[in-house]
Amino acid sequence: MPTAQRAPAALLVRRGGDKLLFDCAEGTQRQLLRSSVGLLELEEVFVTHFHADHVLGLPGMFKTFALRGRELPLRVYGPRGLVDLLGSLKRVVGKLTYDLQLVEVEPGDVLDRDGYRLATFGVAHGVSALGWSLIEATRPGRFDVAAADTLGVPSGPERGALQRGEHVVLPDGRTVKPEDVLGPPRPGRKLVITGDTAPSVEIVEAAWGADVLVTEATFAEEERDRAEETNHQTATQAAEVAQRANVGLLVLTHLSNRYFGPEIAEEARAIFPETIVPRDFDVVEVPYAERGTPHLVKGGASRRREQEVVSSAPQ
Amino acid sequence: MPTAQRAPAALLVRRGGDKLLFDCAEGTQRQLLRSSVGLLELEEVFVTHFHADHVLGLPGMFKTFALRGRELPLRVYGPRGLVDLLGSLKRVVGKLTYDLQLVEVEPGDVLDRDGYRLATFGVAHGVSALGWSLIEATRPGRFDVAAADTLGVPSGPERGALQRGEHVVLPDGRTVKPEDVLGPPRPGRKLVITGDTAPSVEIVEAAWGADVLVTEATFAEEERDRAEETNHQTATQAAEVAQRANVGLLVLTHLSNRYFGPEIAEEARAIFPETIVPRDFDVVEVPYAERGTPHLVKGGASRRREQEVVSSAPQ
Repeated sequence: MPTAQRAPAALLVRRGGDKLLFDCAEGTQRQLLRSSVGLLELEEVFVTHFHADHVLGLPGMFKTFALRGRELPLRVYGPRGLVDLLGSLKRVVGKLTYDLQLVEVEPGDVLDRDGYRLATFGVAHGVSALGWSLIEATRPGRFDVAAADTLGVPSGPERGALQRGEHVVLPDGRTVKPEDVLGPPRPGRKLVITGDTAPSVEIVEAAWGADVLVTEATFAEEERDRAEETNHQTATQAAEVAQRANVGLLVLTHLSNRYFGPEIAEEARAIFPETIVPRDFDVVEVPYAERGTPHLVKGGASRRREQEVVSSAPQ
Repeated sequence: MPTAQRAPAALLVRRGGDKLLFDCAEGTQRQLLRSSVGLLELEEVFVTHFHADHVLGLPGMFKTFALRGRELPLRVYGPRGLVDLLGSLKRVVGKLTYDLQLVEVEPGDVLDRDGYRLATFGVAHGVSALGWSLIEATRPGRFDVAAADTLGVPSGPERGALQRGEHVVLPDGRTVKPEDVLGPPRPGRKLVITGDTAPSVEIVEAAWGADVLVTEATFAEEERDRAEETNHQTATQAAEVAQRANVGLLVLTHLSNRYFGPEIAEEARAIFPETIVPRDFDVVEVPYAERGTPHLVKGGASRRREQEVVSSAPQ
């Protein structure tokens, strides 16, 4: 349930120009309005499961888009039951100005996107539920300018072709292959979002080597029994999953309202030190591996922070 | 639709120990948590109509009460269609720990309460919709201690009986009547809440002489046509209703997201000077007539204000 400090589940992923919303609890549209991001004209929303604290923001957001006269279609992906659920909410929302497309997916389904794919996996929450992995394509290796110069590759379209992985024939008849001028292929990033779940071997497999694993820690270890009864996990269990999956950064969400955050982080860090428990409007930046490691930007999406940044600029 | 500054419709009325919530838009439970009031164990919720921006906070609030293990029944009153609407939301909410009672009422129905009644009236919003009036019973006149002394009424239960409107026979056989020691009966307070509506003569009648009329000014007069098309009203029209109904204070809500508040207040005040446009967490205090007039307490229910009050106390 929400607290004065924390809204229920919603996570916005921005990658290049793409904005992907994972879960949409009550109040999400207004949290976006209150953030520096704004209520974007989202094109795709991904639902992990249909418990009230993950979906009750959908009908109001649908309605607001309609009041703004939206014409762009909106696609919502979720596990089995999506069509049934949103059908029952339709009469509250009324007529929309745009096409609302509902897509049910099964664990193991993959959605291909430009430069990445979204893979789903089963989680253990006792209901129809999915985890989502954003897995980027492997990127070509770094272009070695000195090697290209030495080989006599002219500055121009030939270098672009090599970077795209094509062979190039030079005026003197020699063939230059991409591997002659490119470093080793560079891995893409991998972000895994489980939604609500008990710990499971499927999650360890799905999250293997992820740069970032966003999972739940509804309880601390003192409430282990309650976590098991309700198909949730403790901070300790989440940390064990992160450790076994060898992830870069563990991001814990979905805390019970009796926890404030630091106690959950402390419990998890005893097992997996690279753990954070973000607050609302915090941002996690996930750079390419050669540029740094995933890290928290406190209040990175808060309007107030932007104002503070402005007001602390030289007068 | 909501804005960064304004949540959609919800209005809490506190009278003595009673807490009555009128409408419950998306995010209401969290607005209460964020206020100095808290998310009270409300017993009764009153709905004006079923547009999304007035009801989408209900399922989440129902669910939170269940997660808290509530056992006290919760009654929701609304116009025709209430059972049908909340039935379709039930599957999102799941099983509750308490009895949820849905009561459909017709315009003209009256609910009797201790010391007041809640009367409903029809409004003009193009759908099944109700306004609500809270009308207090007339209070006995002020007890005239000097008159009682002169008449020889002993200090004790006899004076209480006279205040309750009973006749009292003194030891010497004389009968003292309530009107001998009480001033003229004092009117109770009257608060009228219309929800969304176009201006109508029914509202003028229902709001006649109210201490406070809470009504909508979705638009300014420049958008009069749009107000008419959508069964809303302009600030000017709301002020005309208030003037014709001779109310004490006009409280305007439900502004379109293109308005900030001051421009709506200014337009209305040109016709009806006693107009306010509260912001979220503002409080309107409605004293008994002999103790003052209804007035705005800015941020009266905001947590921050309470902190400010504490921190501005003498060190």
